[in-house]
Amino acid sequence: MPVNLLPPHPADLFSVAGVRLGITEAGVRKANRKDVTVILLDAGSSVAGVFTRNRFCAAPVQVCREHLSGEDGIRAMVINTGNANAGTGAQGLADARATCDAMATLLALKPSQILPFSTGVIMEPLPVARIVASLPAALADAQADHWSQAAEGIMTTDTLPKAFSQRLVIGGVPVTITGISKGAGMIRPNMATMLGFMATDANIAPELLQSLTTELADGSFNRITIDGDTSTNDSFMVMATHKAAHPQITSLASAEGQLLKAAMLQVARQLAHAIVRDGEGATKFITLQVEGGQSAAECRQVAYAIAHSPLVKTAFFASDPNLGRILAAVGYAGIEDLDQTRIDLYLDDVLVAVQGGRNPSYQEADGQRVMKQSEILVRVLLGRGSASDTVWTCDLSHEYVSINADYRS
Amino acid sequence: MPVNLLPPHPADLFSVAGVRLGITEAGVRKANRKDVTVILLDAGSSVAGVFTRNRFCAAPVQVCREHLSGEDGIRAMVINTGNANAGTGAQGLADARATCDAMATLLALKPSQILPFSTGVIMEPLPVARIVASLPAALADAQADHWSQAAEGIMTTDTLPKAFSQRLVIGGVPVTITGISKGAGMIRPNMATMLGFMATDANIAPELLQSLTTELADGSFNRITIDGDTSTNDSFMVMATHKAAHPQITSLASAEGQLLKAAMLQVARQLAHAIVRDGEGATKFITLQVEGGQSAAECRQVAYAIAHSPLVKTAFFASDPNLGRILAAVGYAGIEDLDQTRIDLYLDDVLVAVQGGRNPSYQEADGQRVMKQSEILVRVLLGRGSASDTVWTCDLSHEYVSINADYRS
Repeated sequence: MPVNLLPPHPADLFSVAGVRLGITEAGVRKANRKDVTVILLDAGSSVAGVFTRNRFCAAPVQVCREHLSGEDGIRAMVINTGNANAGTGAQGLADARATCDAMATLLALKPSQILPFSTGVIMEPLPVARIVASLPAALADAQADHWSQAAEGIMTTDTLPKAFSQRLVIGGVPVTITGISKGAGMIRPNMATMLGFMATDANIAPELLQSLTTELADGSFNRITIDGDTSTNDSFMVMATHKAAHPQITSLASAEGQLLKAAMLQVARQLAHAIVRDGEGATKFITLQVEGGQSAAECRQVAYAIAHSPLVKTAFFASDPNLGRILAAVGYAGIEDLDQTRIDLYLDDVLVAVQGGRNPSYQEADGQRVMKQSEILVRVLLGRGSASDTVWTCDLSHEYVSINADYRS
Repeated sequence: MPVNLLPPHPADLFSVAGVRLGITEAGVRKANRKDVTVILLDAGSSVAGVFTRNRFCAAPVQVCREHLSGEDGIRAMVINTGNANAGTGAQGLADARATCDAMATLLALKPSQILPFSTGVIMEPLPVARIVASLPAALADAQADHWSQAAEGIMTTDTLPKAFSQRLVIGGVPVTITGISKGAGMIRPNMATMLGFMATDANIAPELLQSLTTELADGSFNRITIDGDTSTNDSFMVMATHKAAHPQITSLASAEGQLLKAAMLQVARQLAHAIVRDGEGATKFITLQVEGGQSAAECRQVAYAIAHSPLVKTAFFASDPNLGRILAAVGYAGIEDLDQTRIDLYLDDVLVAVQGGRNPSYQEADGQRVMKQSEILVRVLLGRGSASDTVWTCDLSHEYVSINADYRS
């Protein structure tokens, strides 16, 4: 059961001028499953992306990087589930290219204008012939209002599709942002891939899109963790069709640039949070806010140490205010000159630890009350500076082990 | 059920001349439990230690460091279970000192000649009065042949006591090494402490003991991991009574020094492996051997990335040869210039991946066969140098979540 997450209502998902989406069944791994999704962009669109830092990155990620660095405008994306095309060596690269070639032929484009994405089992050969054969049906299905279908098309073992829209007005002109994502790092037997796709019709200068994308990822997908496993296929793509009739945004620091960025960040965060809420076996959504650090980086380091501690995560699952585990994680986060006698710990509004020791007026009943909530805020005050950072995660439950221990089926 | 681990046979545990051990019930947390252990050393003994790197280190660890850096020879140790005396602030420090004061009075020693150790729940006040009151009974129990009892006395939620002995001959003189340890990082609700105590009667120059201890820890306790949580109380102590009548060992590089070190390392590894074999919920003992690295450090980094991946650990639990998860962990281990096309992966004798892709002749049945074993060797060949390193770990099972999610009881 996802934590406070509902399926998107199709009426709440707005089309983005210049973007069409289609899905079909290719039988990549199983029959009767929508497993191929295409995204089509009008000419003149811009695309930027952020990819996994895993050195064992999948073949499609390598091809995406190559095509994005070229001069030809990206016009289409092909996404398959069921197979990650990772750990597949030279054949995997050839297969990813073959997918682009086929799509380019169908659309009368260059292969370098196509981006391929794969998600699914690692180290199995991609059934590229079946994917190629499915492309005409996917193209025939392409519609501007198929965001909801596309959100379902990219699902693997997500229990719910993830899609969000946002509308704002820039220079008197309505601008739309819509995005979809699928499950994080720990999807069932190596469905180990986070994918995110966002589009806007905002008229943003193309040269701003990559740095905007990086900022958006840093504030959303790069701040979530479920089990600390970094997928071979993680990709977050931002598309701008430039169709909105407002004056072009030429700086992210301008009023309009900030407005657009804030709205896009909201969608990116919703998409990222939805991945945590639908994390394998998740029963709690936990916000880890670390304050009073010398740098945001060290705050993040502490937040991740807490977020990745199996002891902390199982305590959240059990609603057990066994909060010494959080202090222990703070202690091994790797800040060499950390002074434990300056550290305070809050669980929501409850002051649990003061100056590295138990708050004398802390009552276990107060901790217990907060631990039972489905949404919990943990605040750690390091007392060594004014920087802060936030990470979102979930708990570690029996269900997580069940899901990931199941034989691939 | 621990993995291939049996309780020590008391007859196989040899006394070490100059060392006596006693245990008693203090009622630290529960009644009718042997929860206080004392170790007494003859005058002239040397002691060295390695402690947790957790910045939230427990009060007793702070006192140990202080007393070990002093000029007075260490003559006794007091170990309590049931309470870690960590996250306890200034009161915790005072309590650890009070324990030393009481022991010193009973033995007519200085407090600085006593080392305190605590293991158990974090952030609860130490019931120091009950511990102090129990010391006379523990001292009355002290015997040279009480190693087995001491191994039980320091247990928290370990399912078996852990104790090993080794005998060797140096310069025609028999030398004995005996050690005990208790469970690693993830013991039931915050019994989050690894403790190891080894003694030898070898006549080793006192000034060699600290570097020897560091080397022993690096080759044993520092190479095991169960869930990646670093305890606030981890301590590994090595005691030398110098009673054996062979000429003093004045260099670890000498033939005798190497002989002694090898025998002590064997005991340290047995103690460390026993902790993994008795890891919470463990069903498999896994050796991660990374070869072909540019440095041992980067090999270790890769080994730990694999060892800490919940996806890898649940696959081992399920006996599922879902080996792409291992490649993914290698990829995110943090070696920036890693070339995936040079990486080979073996599961015992089975060559699973070659040059970053699936070995064409690999059969799933072969992987399946190895995954069912209770002892599994994973070899990763990085193909970038000649360094190697090894880490030992266990799998992640339902039982782990059950144990750690149980409310503290």
